[in-house]
Amino acid sequence: MAETTSNQMWGGRFADKPDAIMEAINASIGFDQRLAAQDIAGSRAHAAMLAATGIVEASDAEAMREGLLTVLSEIEGGTFTFSTALEDIHMNVEARLKEIVGPAAGRLHTARSRNDQVATDFRLWVRDQLDAAEAQLLALVRALLAQAETGADWVMPGFTHLQTAQPVTWGHHMMAYVEMFGRDLSRVRDARARMNECPLGAAALAGTGFPIDRDMTAAALGFDRPCANSLDAVSDRDFALEFLSVASISAMHLSRFAEELVIWSSAQFRFVVLSDRFSTGSSIMPQKKNPDAAELIRAKIGRIFGAQVALMTVMKGLPLAYSKDMQEDKEQVFDAADNWLLSLAAMDGMVRDMAANAPALEAAAASGFSTATDLADWLVRVAGLPFREAHHVTGSLVAVAEARGCDLPDLALEDMKEVHGAITEDVFDVLGVRNSVASRTSYGGTAPDQVRAQIARWKEILG
Amino acid sequence: MAETTSNQMWGGRFADKPDAIMEAINASIGFDQRLAAQDIAGSRAHAAMLAATGIVEASDAEAMREGLLTVLSEIEGGTFTFSTALEDIHMNVEARLKEIVGPAAGRLHTARSRNDQVATDFRLWVRDQLDAAEAQLLALVRALLAQAETGADWVMPGFTHLQTAQPVTWGHHMMAYVEMFGRDLSRVRDARARMNECPLGAAALAGTGFPIDRDMTAAALGFDRPCANSLDAVSDRDFALEFLSVASISAMHLSRFAEELVIWSSAQFRFVVLSDRFSTGSSIMPQKKNPDAAELIRAKIGRIFGAQVALMTVMKGLPLAYSKDMQEDKEQVFDAADNWLLSLAAMDGMVRDMAANAPALEAAAASGFSTATDLADWLVRVAGLPFREAHHVTGSLVAVAEARGCDLPDLALEDMKEVHGAITEDVFDVLGVRNSVASRTSYGGTAPDQVRAQIARWKEILG
Amino acid sequence: MAETTSNQMWGGRFADKPDAIMEAINASIGFDQRLAAQDIAGSRAHAAMLAATGIVEASDAEAMREGLLTVLSEIEGGTFTFSTALEDIHMNVEARLKEIVGPAAGRLHTARSRNDQVATDFRLWVRDQLDAAEAQLLALVRALLAQAETGADWVMPGFTHLQTAQPVTWGHHMMAYVEMFGRDLSRVRDARARMNECPLGAAALAGTGFPIDRDMTAAALGFDRPCANSLDAVSDRDFALEFLSVASISAMHLSRFAEELVIWSSAQFRFVVLSDRFSTGSSIMPQKKNPDAAELIRAKIGRIFGAQVALMTVMKGLPLAYSKDMQEDKEQVFDAADNWLLSLAAMDGMVRDMAANAPALEAAAASGFSTATDLADWLVRVAGLPFREAHHVTGSLVAVAEARGCDLPDLALEDMKEVHGAITEDVFDVLGVRNSVASRTSYGGTAPDQVRAQIARWKEILG
Amino acid sequence: MAETTSNQMWGGRFADKPDAIMEAINASIGFDQRLAAQDIAGSRAHAAMLAATGIVEASDAEAMREGLLTVLSEIEGGTFTFSTALEDIHMNVEARLKEIVGPAAGRLHTARSRNDQVATDFRLWVRDQLDAAEAQLLALVRALLAQAETGADWVMPGFTHLQTAQPVTWGHHMMAYVEMFGRDLSRVRDARARMNECPLGAAALAGTGFPIDRDMTAAALGFDRPCANSLDAVSDRDFALEFLSVASISAMHLSRFAEELVIWSSAQFRFVVLSDRFSTGSSIMPQKKNPDAAELIRAKIGRIFGAQVALMTVMKGLPLAYSKDMQEDKEQVFDAADNWLLSLAAMDGMVRDMAANAPALEAAAASGFSTATDLADWLVRVAGLPFREAHHVTGSLVAVAEARGCDLPDLALEDMKEVHGAITEDVFDVLGVRNSVASRTSYGGTAPDQVRAQIARWKEILG
Repeated sequence: MAETTSNQMWGGRFADKPDAIMEAINASIGFDQRLAAQDIAGSRAHAAMLAATGIVEASDAEAMREGLLTVLSEIEGGTFTFSTALEDIHMNVEARLKEIVGPAAGRLHTARSRNDQVATDFRLWVRDQLDAAEAQLLALVRALLAQAETGADWVMPGFTHLQTAQPVTWGHHMMAYVEMFGRDLSRVRDARARMNECPLGAAALAGTGFPIDRDMTAAALGFDRPCANSLDAVSDRDFALEFLSVASISAMHLSRFAEELVIWSSAQFRFVVLSDRFSTGSSIMPQKKNPDAAELIRAKIGRIFGAQVALMTVMKGLPLAYSKDMQEDKEQVFDAADNWLLSLAAMDGMVRDMAANAPALEAAAASGFSTATDLADWLVRVAGLPFREAHHVTGSLVAVAEARGCDLPDLALEDMKEVHGAITEDVFDVLGVRNSVASRTSYGGTAPDQVRAQIARWKEILG
Repeated sequence: MAETTSNQMWGGRFADKPDAIMEAINASIGFDQRLAAQDIAGSRAHAAMLAATGIVEASDAEAMREGLLTVLSEIEGGTFTFSTALEDIHMNVEARLKEIVGPAAGRLHTARSRNDQVATDFRLWVRDQLDAAEAQLLALVRALLAQAETGADWVMPGFTHLQTAQPVTWGHHMMAYVEMFGRDLSRVRDARARMNECPLGAAALAGTGFPIDRDMTAAALGFDRPCANSLDAVSDRDFALEFLSVASISAMHLSRFAEELVIWSSAQFRFVVLSDRFSTGSSIMPQKKNPDAAELIRAKIGRIFGAQVALMTVMKGLPLAYSKDMQEDKEQVFDAADNWLLSLAAMDGMVRDMAANAPALEAAAASGFSTATDLADWLVRVAGLPFREAHHVTGSLVAVAEARGCDLPDLALEDMKEVHGAITEDVFDVLGVRNSVASRTSYGGTAPDQVRAQIARWKEILG
Repeated sequence: MAETTSNQMWGGRFADKPDAIMEAINASIGFDQRLAAQDIAGSRAHAAMLAATGIVEASDAEAMREGLLTVLSEIEGGTFTFSTALEDIHMNVEARLKEIVGPAAGRLHTARSRNDQVATDFRLWVRDQLDAAEAQLLALVRALLAQAETGADWVMPGFTHLQTAQPVTWGHHMMAYVEMFGRDLSRVRDARARMNECPLGAAALAGTGFPIDRDMTAAALGFDRPCANSLDAVSDRDFALEFLSVASISAMHLSRFAEELVIWSSAQFRFVVLSDRFSTGSSIMPQKKNPDAAELIRAKIGRIFGAQVALMTVMKGLPLAYSKDMQEDKEQVFDAADNWLLSLAAMDGMVRDMAANAPALEAAAASGFSTATDLADWLVRVAGLPFREAHHVTGSLVAVAEARGCDLPDLALEDMKEVHGAITEDVFDVLGVRNSVASRTSYGGTAPDQVRAQIARWKEILG
Repeated sequence: MAETTSNQMWGGRFADKPDAIMEAINASIGFDQRLAAQDIAGSRAHAAMLAATGIVEASDAEAMREGLLTVLSEIEGGTFTFSTALEDIHMNVEARLKEIVGPAAGRLHTARSRNDQVATDFRLWVRDQLDAAEAQLLALVRALLAQAETGADWVMPGFTHLQTAQPVTWGHHMMAYVEMFGRDLSRVRDARARMNECPLGAAALAGTGFPIDRDMTAAALGFDRPCANSLDAVSDRDFALEFLSVASISAMHLSRFAEELVIWSSAQFRFVVLSDRFSTGSSIMPQKKNPDAAELIRAKIGRIFGAQVALMTVMKGLPLAYSKDMQEDKEQVFDAADNWLLSLAAMDGMVRDMAANAPALEAAAASGFSTATDLADWLVRVAGLPFREAHHVTGSLVAVAEARGCDLPDLALEDMKEVHGAITEDVFDVLGVRNSVASRTSYGGTAPDQVRAQIARWKEILG
């Protein structure tokens, strides 16, 4: 928590001190202290550049750069006292730097302002989250690949409308999520490439007359280039919005998988068993395992997408350049990033640990005449019926099976021939769920070989 | 912050301990400790009822009730150590109670569960916020009434499309916001009345076989009645959503007023001067006063409405009864409530302190032929022209004035007569902004007397 | 569709005609023609008032009132040609009126403007939707009461985390939704009462100098009173936002029930059979019934809540009074209202037709040691154990049953006594799902008698 | 509008016909007819592939391909009768095709289902919108470049908090928006590249046993490759969500510029004059020009972002594969695309036509000691003062100027020297707004030469 003093930077010229409510609504140090490492990295790069361009003395710059490291270690060590009266992380760091290195600290703010400083800090922070998300997504994709590999040929029901539609393989289902999280990965990389421009040197909004070297600071901080327009550099929060948008779509994917895990864990489905490490129990029902992690992941899309709504609403209709409204950007992104990364990690852990119930999956796959489509396709492919007629014949056969209380593969050939004379013994090759999935060899289809081919492709992509 | 231990309530029966990630995503004590006072109030009411109905011994209940007060004072005094392993506020309180009063503490959880307990705690907390919002809205309405009274007859431009349309009075403009915040007040009261039902006694979801007295606990906690369906009692979060919805609409009103204050404070408008207490300055431009509080209030709608989006998204499609997803409700409401109340307080302070620049307002009101409508209306009312023809004549007169570089009241009568013969000397009574506003005496209109009548009506309403 | 002409009302004074893109973005007749009936009702009330107050001749007013009826019948009969060049419904109606009644039509717009006119039209339309929603909610509540009555004592699993927790009754579950939709009903009524104020007479924004009688028009249109501030009257869209908020919360309730119906219809649950009338089939799998209506209802919350987001975003930061931004209000409300009412009707139909599978429900209820809590409660209530100890004993008994592959009621008394000596024959009275639900007689609990009492209470409320 | 018949594709096997409400909620033909061209293109590619792979006879395929062209021309010609009973565009087209080519039409649906068909149609449609958006963004960027070029050295106030902060150039301000819309362009291209995979051949969800050639259909429809997982191919709506996300961020940029145009058009600012072609007027105030197009553009972010909220909410928690909920995707994307493209076109037109008021801009830039920062920087740069001390000296000089009622360049050198002895004649080179902007030559700064360099860079990028 931050300590309040009455001494404001600009307050001396005002007849009245800020109201306590004003201080409460205005100060950002309560949350932007989280940018301390980024703020100090930015200041150190700036100081080095000021020396290299002759704007400040090399010795002063060196003193500032050393002093900033001291400040960083104090903050990391928990011995730093943050002050609300100093409003934000920038002023808190600078004030302490002055205590450490003396008046030379006053030269650090040459050719910059808090507007480009905070934009730089926040970009660095968001970039770190994108890197963390990339690593986390890769881990999750690998966990899914492992599940897919193990169960490449386990048969399970493929659902539409949560009704059994056609049999698919466990590996195929896992690989669907690999595609989704793979797209998230691709969006993370695009977002990172687009946002990796350095606002430092935009100063308050107009650039500066000092002979600064923006390429030097950009490079020192790992940016690809400086931002090309100083007004835009301090007014832009696209990088934060795109981060939230990428996180939201990824959270949507997580919510879909989580929903499946909740349903699959029910007593009625019993498709998977989640590990103890990612379940909670009940103090009186030892057999009970609540899929709390899955439920929480399912819910996290709320706050992550809510953060996007919040920041979009803030940015709507803001004139250039900096407006104080933009101070509302950080907490939303902090919270969304924390919860997205936590959800990815929890899903990764759940996927690693979870055990599919292969027999239950296969039994469920066989129910509900799930190979009726295979029969219809056979009638088209082998017996040469037009598709719509084949479907009509299949409907009749299903009706016969239903009347007898049996499944399609249990019908006798003669019963089938009675419905349509073109049916031959060969039809049994496509009935039964194992035959069904094995037959679906079209590119991207559910046949185990197709699934293994996709696993191989992804392994090659991941290197 | 909370301390982590490995000892989980239900963990003993699991082969594996929860993963660290699982603990991180699962525990709520990091935020629900904010419900401590409500939790303890609920437990004290529950203990008293258990004794009154003979479910527990009176002496045990008394010990628990005393012990809970001790826990509360420890929490309020900052000496309580919260434990993440104990997951939430309920278990933290109960565990400490057990240390204080011994095994009797184990009887407290009779005939209730954490599901109805948290629903009760959270309702109590939200109800407190509704009460705080009511008080804050009343203060803001009073501040606006004071501004309206002072400037009931100050003339200012009434805008449409941010273009000068017709003159209005400062008091009238302030009273428009009184209507808006008055509706917020009405929504707050409706929400409070609707949500004031007690979930306690719903137990896990099905009610209980213990002979509890739900009317007694409801009354003790200030509820109007117990919730009528135990499944609904633990599954419902309407009270939180309605709170967020009421807060969001109110935040929208705040954002509109804040936008006006930002625009009115610009060098180009200069309609108001905000006080030093609610402005920030610049270290080099002493004349500069940034309307930071207004900007922040304008932005707060983002997070308040974002919270509504977040919780609506969480609740979408959740089957009955309790799902862990619902744990995501609290942080959203906490943040929205804090920011709404803070925004109302800051707006109240700004309104109290702000000084309208009456001469600038009047000068602006007179620009742009803002009384052209009055002229047209006069032509209808006095000269008997149909409305559409009157508008045509007015258009011609404005064109004449524009050509001469003067305003409508500056035209000579003969010039006017040339455009339309029916115009007489009397027309000058409606030209000029003071005449204009004075004439608009329809109910709710901008005439100073109408404004004063509305101020009087509101004072009577407020008592 | 609307026909475009180049003749604009205000275009003659402009050097250039509006760009085609400008016409496309500006015209509202494409959607606001839906307000035709409300617009004409408002104009007829206005004309009558203008005559009563002597502002126009009685004969002119009568001609206008008759002519407006003609216009209405043309629109309702589909013979009216809408013109985009006339921008909106107000100008389209007035232009046609002029053709019918001649120049007297020009007097209709005396003492009003399009700003108060559209605000009046839109309020009338929204009020109609609130009335329709009230009727639809009542129908749905009655359908749920019928289901609850039929199955007041059917036992089913009560879920938490979609895991079986405790047995409840079908009637109890249905009544939980009665509470939810009952709250929606209450919100609808509050919203209607709050919004039932008449903007007519606010004119452009400042009121008017004509001696109008706003109470008369308000009463003629069924409003409780005129709006008390003319600036607010034309700037306010709270009534639309509150409508969207009420609809959104109701849509959330619908989404929860719809999710349950989808899950309950799965082959794994088979808790309900939806009627043919509210299902779709597959052309090849005759046994397949897709719960399309439930899925669509589950999804409708998206667009209904999206509409609220859209309009909140539009209203954020809008200065007073009318800005063109506000033209974006109608399509959102139209779409949300249509989809909410349709969803309520579809849910009503599904609930009326659906057949619960009572044997499947009871079988599912008995699985998973769902009466373990009853056993623990018995140990507290009868054997006098502290709650936490009772839970420990219950856990041990569940472990024994689990080891033997039986349910709790199947254990022998001696086996139980071995775990805890205080257990007696009486314990079997609370084991078994029927005993369990019968015992939960606390107010609002799941016991059939409690459920019937709540049904009776609701029937009395509904009259 | 669509005609209803009672003959449903799957209805014959149901005892009851669908309820009218069911038909109303279920049918999509009311909106998905907009996908007709894409549906027919997809079917034609599919037919060609079926022939090439020998799945159907070449002559049948040719008949179907020709017949589909006939259907397309009927739809485009407005002579096609859509049927609600046929539910959607796919069945409407196929039914008509059967009338035209006879039973061979029944072979078209071989090896596909409506699930992969609609996914393909919708991707094609969204891809077209991305292409249209790219063209529209390029046009807008070019319009901004033209404005920037014309006014590369016009001085205007740079605002923070809507308070004058430092002078900038008109060109610089325009170029800030070039950066923003340039990022939109980049996001459009990334989204297009990522979504350009073909779902056709995924069939219902599992792929197919027919020897289809997915690469062939993908190539024929301009896709880069087929989707790699058939479950994902029919369940994925990322392409729609990413489209909405890109559109939303772009709409946010539009809303910021629109807000500036509204403020700049006010009587108090008078920074720009919008053209007649993109303004609306008033029938009585000929001088009045309402910035309706700007207001509408500012508002459009509401429905565009609302659409994203709507679809995200729909997709939250949906299990794989197809659920009927996903039918709610199209209307949201249609509406958002229409309004985004319309807003871009309207903004393009406004920017092309608008005239900046250069003298008013420069006058406003000079007010408020806007070159105080330049003075402070001079003290650092030339006189060698530390930054914080320089700011203190500047504050004192501003106070002197304020007291004398003059601007900084109007102070005498001796007055300045009195405040700080190091000040020399050279200081006047940086005072005055033209000197100020000329001095800010850092990369991306506001100096006219910098602005021209950025214009040149963009022209090179655009080619």
